[in-house]
Amino acid sequence: MAICSKKWGNDSYLIADESDATLQKGKEEIDLALKKMPVVRQLIDQFGKEKPLQGIKIAACLHVTKETANLCRVLQAGGAEIYLCGSNPLSTQDFVATALAEEGVHVFAWTGNTDEEFYECIDACLKPQPNIIIDDGADLIVTAHKNYPEYFDENGCIIACQEETTTGVHRFEAMDKAGALKCALYPVNDASCKNQFDNELGTGQGIVAAIIGMHVLFAGKTVVVAGYGHCSSGMALRARGLGARVIVTEVDPIQALKAAFSGYEVGKMHDVIHKADMIFTATGCKNVVAKEHIPKLKDGVILANLGHFDVEIVAKDLYEAAEGHIKTIRPNVEELVFPSGKRAYLLAAGRLANLALAEGHPSEVMDMSFGLQAMMAEYIAKNRDTLKNRVGLFKVPEEINEKVAYAKLASMGITIDSWTEEQYKYCTGYEEGT
Amino acid sequence: MAICSKKWGNDSYLIADESDATLQKGKEEIDLALKKMPVVRQLIDQFGKEKPLQGIKIAACLHVTKETANLCRVLQAGGAEIYLCGSNPLSTQDFVATALAEEGVHVFAWTGNTDEEFYECIDACLKPQPNIIIDDGADLIVTAHKNYPEYFDENGCIIACQEETTTGVHRFEAMDKAGALKCALYPVNDASCKNQFDNELGTGQGIVAAIIGMHVLFAGKTVVVAGYGHCSSGMALRARGLGARVIVTEVDPIQALKAAFSGYEVGKMHDVIHKADMIFTATGCKNVVAKEHIPKLKDGVILANLGHFDVEIVAKDLYEAAEGHIKTIRPNVEELVFPSGKRAYLLAAGRLANLALAEGHPSEVMDMSFGLQAMMAEYIAKNRDTLKNRVGLFKVPEEINEKVAYAKLASMGITIDSWTEEQYKYCTGYEEGT
Amino acid sequence: MAICSKKWGNDSYLIADESDATLQKGKEEIDLALKKMPVVRQLIDQFGKEKPLQGIKIAACLHVTKETANLCRVLQAGGAEIYLCGSNPLSTQDFVATALAEEGVHVFAWTGNTDEEFYECIDACLKPQPNIIIDDGADLIVTAHKNYPEYFDENGCIIACQEETTTGVHRFEAMDKAGALKCALYPVNDASCKNQFDNELGTGQGIVAAIIGMHVLFAGKTVVVAGYGHCSSGMALRARGLGARVIVTEVDPIQALKAAFSGYEVGKMHDVIHKADMIFTATGCKNVVAKEHIPKLKDGVILANLGHFDVEIVAKDLYEAAEGHIKTIRPNVEELVFPSGKRAYLLAAGRLANLALAEGHPSEVMDMSFGLQAMMAEYIAKNRDTLKNRVGLFKVPEEINEKVAYAKLASMGITIDSWTEEQYKYCTGYEEGT
Amino acid sequence: MAICSKKWGNDSYLIADESDATLQKGKEEIDLALKKMPVVRQLIDQFGKEKPLQGIKIAACLHVTKETANLCRVLQAGGAEIYLCGSNPLSTQDFVATALAEEGVHVFAWTGNTDEEFYECIDACLKPQPNIIIDDGADLIVTAHKNYPEYFDENGCIIACQEETTTGVHRFEAMDKAGALKCALYPVNDASCKNQFDNELGTGQGIVAAIIGMHVLFAGKTVVVAGYGHCSSGMALRARGLGARVIVTEVDPIQALKAAFSGYEVGKMHDVIHKADMIFTATGCKNVVAKEHIPKLKDGVILANLGHFDVEIVAKDLYEAAEGHIKTIRPNVEELVFPSGKRAYLLAAGRLANLALAEGHPSEVMDMSFGLQAMMAEYIAKNRDTLKNRVGLFKVPEEINEKVAYAKLASMGITIDSWTEEQYKYCTGYEEGT
Repeated sequence: MAICSKKWGNDSYLIADESDATLQKGKEEIDLALKKMPVVRQLIDQFGKEKPLQGIKIAACLHVTKETANLCRVLQAGGAEIYLCGSNPLSTQDFVATALAEEGVHVFAWTGNTDEEFYECIDACLKPQPNIIIDDGADLIVTAHKNYPEYFDENGCIIACQEETTTGVHRFEAMDKAGALKCALYPVNDASCKNQFDNELGTGQGIVAAIIGMHVLFAGKTVVVAGYGHCSSGMALRARGLGARVIVTEVDPIQALKAAFSGYEVGKMHDVIHKADMIFTATGCKNVVAKEHIPKLKDGVILANLGHFDVEIVAKDLYEAAEGHIKTIRPNVEELVFPSGKRAYLLAAGRLANLALAEGHPSEVMDMSFGLQAMMAEYIAKNRDTLKNRVGLFKVPEEINEKVAYAKLASMGITIDSWTEEQYKYCTGYEEGT
Repeated sequence: MAICSKKWGNDSYLIADESDATLQKGKEEIDLALKKMPVVRQLIDQFGKEKPLQGIKIAACLHVTKETANLCRVLQAGGAEIYLCGSNPLSTQDFVATALAEEGVHVFAWTGNTDEEFYECIDACLKPQPNIIIDDGADLIVTAHKNYPEYFDENGCIIACQEETTTGVHRFEAMDKAGALKCALYPVNDASCKNQFDNELGTGQGIVAAIIGMHVLFAGKTVVVAGYGHCSSGMALRARGLGARVIVTEVDPIQALKAAFSGYEVGKMHDVIHKADMIFTATGCKNVVAKEHIPKLKDGVILANLGHFDVEIVAKDLYEAAEGHIKTIRPNVEELVFPSGKRAYLLAAGRLANLALAEGHPSEVMDMSFGLQAMMAEYIAKNRDTLKNRVGLFKVPEEINEKVAYAKLASMGITIDSWTEEQYKYCTGYEEGT
Repeated sequence: MAICSKKWGNDSYLIADESDATLQKGKEEIDLALKKMPVVRQLIDQFGKEKPLQGIKIAACLHVTKETANLCRVLQAGGAEIYLCGSNPLSTQDFVATALAEEGVHVFAWTGNTDEEFYECIDACLKPQPNIIIDDGADLIVTAHKNYPEYFDENGCIIACQEETTTGVHRFEAMDKAGALKCALYPVNDASCKNQFDNELGTGQGIVAAIIGMHVLFAGKTVVVAGYGHCSSGMALRARGLGARVIVTEVDPIQALKAAFSGYEVGKMHDVIHKADMIFTATGCKNVVAKEHIPKLKDGVILANLGHFDVEIVAKDLYEAAEGHIKTIRPNVEELVFPSGKRAYLLAAGRLANLALAEGHPSEVMDMSFGLQAMMAEYIAKNRDTLKNRVGLFKVPEEINEKVAYAKLASMGITIDSWTEEQYKYCTGYEEGT
Repeated sequence: MAICSKKWGNDSYLIADESDATLQKGKEEIDLALKKMPVVRQLIDQFGKEKPLQGIKIAACLHVTKETANLCRVLQAGGAEIYLCGSNPLSTQDFVATALAEEGVHVFAWTGNTDEEFYECIDACLKPQPNIIIDDGADLIVTAHKNYPEYFDENGCIIACQEETTTGVHRFEAMDKAGALKCALYPVNDASCKNQFDNELGTGQGIVAAIIGMHVLFAGKTVVVAGYGHCSSGMALRARGLGARVIVTEVDPIQALKAAFSGYEVGKMHDVIHKADMIFTATGCKNVVAKEHIPKLKDGVILANLGHFDVEIVAKDLYEAAEGHIKTIRPNVEELVFPSGKRAYLLAAGRLANLALAEGHPSEVMDMSFGLQAMMAEYIAKNRDTLKNRVGLFKVPEEINEKVAYAKLASMGITIDSWTEEQYKYCTGYEEGT
């Protein structure tokens, strides 16, 4: 894959392809997605008028998809200058990167980058001294802490940071606990308008897109879902909704109980893995399917990870076991034949299967997540003086969360009840009883 | 209904019936329920050995059901002295009260008590200067604050309080905000082992029990569910699971969106009420179905409330509109004929239909809630010195929450995975990335 | 139980109780049910005007419920004289029998009759030389063939017969194959307006009523459903809809595949029975749960049959194994303790649990089945000359089937599309192609 | 698109592309599909040994997919000579056609053929005087009747015919009724192993593949499904399973009731169409969405047909209304902008969207349909003497239907119960009763 580098105006970017055809495709796909993102559309209008991000530099490490492109459009409309790198080696849609470069975003991303290139791109986003960092998986912010500690000083550039995904939030919680976090961090992932929609619905439909794209029937299959959090329970729900029999594994007893009371079989991975026609992971943990599980795998099993990192299904272990008998049978689908003669199908080398085999989370749902991200950037810019010196994880303000929800409801043509004066008084008081 | 009052040993109680037959039925029903409450059973053993509640007086205002009786057995086994009143006029199972009295609980409860009697019973529980109050709906604790403020003083008897239900927690949050709360309050309701099970599963099956007990087919019916919180979403799920078409009304935009993305029609009560064959409420609010809605009701509509108080469906408004044309057609089911000629069926006069028409939440689910309540009483007793002087709402410790979950899983024959050393390090750290 | 026998006018009946209270309750319950039976209500009007059954004697062996009472009202309105006995020893609602007797139906039925009494009642219905027999389970018609063969002669009284249930239809198919059937037989059960509604929805909700009436939580339970035909698949669907994990056993490979492709685990009874918290049967077969399965039963298992006869779960085998350790813990619920110490809960001694523990199929669904039965009786009377000499099983005419469906849809406020002239031509032709 | 024609040995074919790359892709895809078709695999073995089709010429008009290729392999293994054309202009997978040509099948098929070419291909299959015709939609057999009536004479070549789809069966029923059918016709579609699996599961997952391939979220969408037969109810079930709200339209009152009792909203197309975010059709009828509906369409609506012919959604009407404002935005997805400014997205020009946008029914399910087709060809060959002179529609023998089901179950690792001697006697007898 050819990588090109080119100056454009006084800005820079690194993308895979700058042909007109690619550019046009990118533009069209981004525009098409925007039609399905009414909340973001509304913010583009509003930010365009109010310019809340004038003078703000934003560094972002996100999946470079058509939806992310529309987030960039809002932020740009608001006056921000944007530095963007991809949060996963396989998730960049190159035509999107091309279109973004043309629209003036400093984009450093292409499909299939190496680990080394990944960190070069990260550095390219950090060098320009951003004021806000938007991250998906914590790599950009963690790297900033390591390589640019001065950004977080009293006179450093950073106002605050935003994190998009569960895995990233867990890392920041650990960092905070260890006293290593040096700024205010907004776990946008934890807003209910994000994780109860993007995570459940997006991941749920994402696994469907990946599997159905392989032309595999769900009905009648036995699916083992590792995890029963927001993402994984979404996958369980959809697999069931398509006629599969679902078995859940968990380490959290409450989630395990929820799965059991929802009618799923629940057990330890070692006890149930041999029943699986497909195994889906989204745990945020590592070694969920590893070397020791290989002998128990059923012939023909499909292995798909939708967790953020590629450590859940340990590709390395699988590759070693099937060495010399690995064949790509469809894009991002490898057939591995083990010495036992049994076959397994590994998707996207254990990386996010929905982004590699399909187009990632649907625009309709990213509309909410990125509506939140944009409004949080506005909120941080507005409160820069206060936030500058705060350290720790802070909740997304409920009024922002609700604003997104109301906007989404309106775009769907749904109006809901609101409290009367009397109801308000009753519901917020404590005097009335039996 | 005859109310009897009798001294027994040196204790006192007020119950409806002390016949041997009633006593025996109570014993049998409580024993039968206990077979379905393995977590509580295990705690009875443990508390019996360790006596963690020795010397503790507990006042409790709960639905006096066979499951509550088993909570009393744990607390007694632990050494506590218990004063119990009913939290709802229609929810007391008299045979349970009789058996409890015989087992040495100071029980002041009978079906169909008046408002005045309700507060007399509350007073009977407060007078003995309890150390812990367990409440369901906040009435007991609020009354204690009003009538016995000295209990909360530095040398007062109260260590801390526990609340069982969403409505009660909301009242305490309001009280806390208003600076009126004077003790440490544990909203047991908010523990995930409580509200994601008891509320969703219990209320869900509760409405099914009430409606099916009326011999009404769910399939093909249009059901309007007011609210989409833990309780109400549970009702929506079950109604759908039985073949009904469900429409949701909400005031919270996030819950409304969740309902919409789950495939339910969502709208304002005024816009959808005319489609309803049944209306279920569990909002914690008032006036959800009131005077202004009556003209829009469909002929033959069933009205059932499962929220804590009887203000959601305003029985008074309905009775006034149908004055002179009200007839009880089954126990706790009234047929109201309005001047328009249209009929409505009101369950339990707008009070908790699942407790009036059926037996309340199933024992299996109360096992978890009451396991939590018992362990929280133990926790409070153990930490009495610290807690004595704390004021505010405190989270149920996660280890207690998890202990209940693990015990429940074990009783269901389910074992789950646990982190290896390596996984633990990975999941609680932040260093490893892409 | 006292059985009374009394002449009333010049007719006779045998019922359990003729008190005024019972009579009034019967009247009220039947009236209440009629409100939920719009198709039957409409037929009462129509038959009342047209008297299509004038001079016709109908013998019927049906569950004597409030819904059956309303079928009797249609037939009476049409001019028929009715002789009714109960089709199951535990399913008669005595207050209904009393009300029917008062309304002039010759009813011979009471709860808990013996086998001998059962056949006496059957005989009482046959002696008066009926012209049409309506049966539920084939006992009445089979007995007629045995004891009154002359009824089927050229000059015999019988015009044709109607059968209500799958089990009965299977018996008649066997009879027909053996050359033993002597009349025209309409398997009303096989009309799509019957078996896709009554069987699936009625049995589905029936098992829910029986189990929920025991105050048992469905969610989290493992349920083994024996069979995956109309009735049993309905039970599987409802159990799943209430949060249970369902396992299906079958002898028919196509039904087994359907279950598997619907996401159910499928296996042999011997291989799965140990997982069951509840076992439901509706197979039409015998020995589904028998002696050899007892050692594998899980402690606390609930055993419920909803098939027509009590041979599916072999009560006798269970009673023998638990001899001396059997206790009724709720009406129609027996606790059996086996020598191993394990307990099982047997419902209704293996008889139709939904009719013994609850009120049988909901009125809304019986409305369709009995609408069909009534219209078939009209059809038979109208075509008596042709039918008199026909032998074999004949399909319910599609226009009758559809008439019931249209009437039901209208009562639910649903209007549907109909073909335009052009569509009709297209859909019934064969000329137009690619 | 270049069409090539080439002699190969003494056989002929017409395909789009004979490059090695295409050939290899075809081989690989067919082999991959075969791994998911265990029933067909087993038949290839068996037919290879027994050669039941030796000397038989089979003409087939089917979707030329990798699954059809495997059907050809079975038939070839059995000794048959095969003439194959495509049953739909957009459904041919050209790489499959290439591979089939190489394997010796006389294939006349390429994507995007014209109507004229379609009939030329049909003729190419008929000229060689086939003994068996396998059809999908009736075009091949109807044309044979028109153009080669002598084939059906006493000494003509045709033994019997087989039909794959509902639409085709309806055409043959009409033909039979009109006295125009001249041979024995096996509606393989009507075997339960076909229409309860292929139609429901295949079409259900097919619409999911088409829509998800467009990167559109199902959850929260309102979907109108026209029809509630095997295919359309499958689509309704899957749309619901993915979180959509489903509304059903029907002309058949029984199917309409089934939809209503399954919790779907049911109404006339004119009354509900304005609510639809997506409209799916599979009715077998014409003009389901036509000119008169356009003004009511919601902005952004997606229109997808999965019925056999492209007359359900009248593409012509839509194109006329949006003339000059039609744009292809993705392969097989056109955006139409109407004069009102509202947009609609039409899939595959109204042709089978699952075959044009995705790969058609999954191999797992075609395994059953084509297992049946192959066994029916064997059956017809074996019974040629009897069948030669029979005319009319004949049921697929139940033992063939069951053989397929047992083979499929075995391949899924499922074993089921079978009757004991005693059970057999009970279930096939009529003597035992209450």
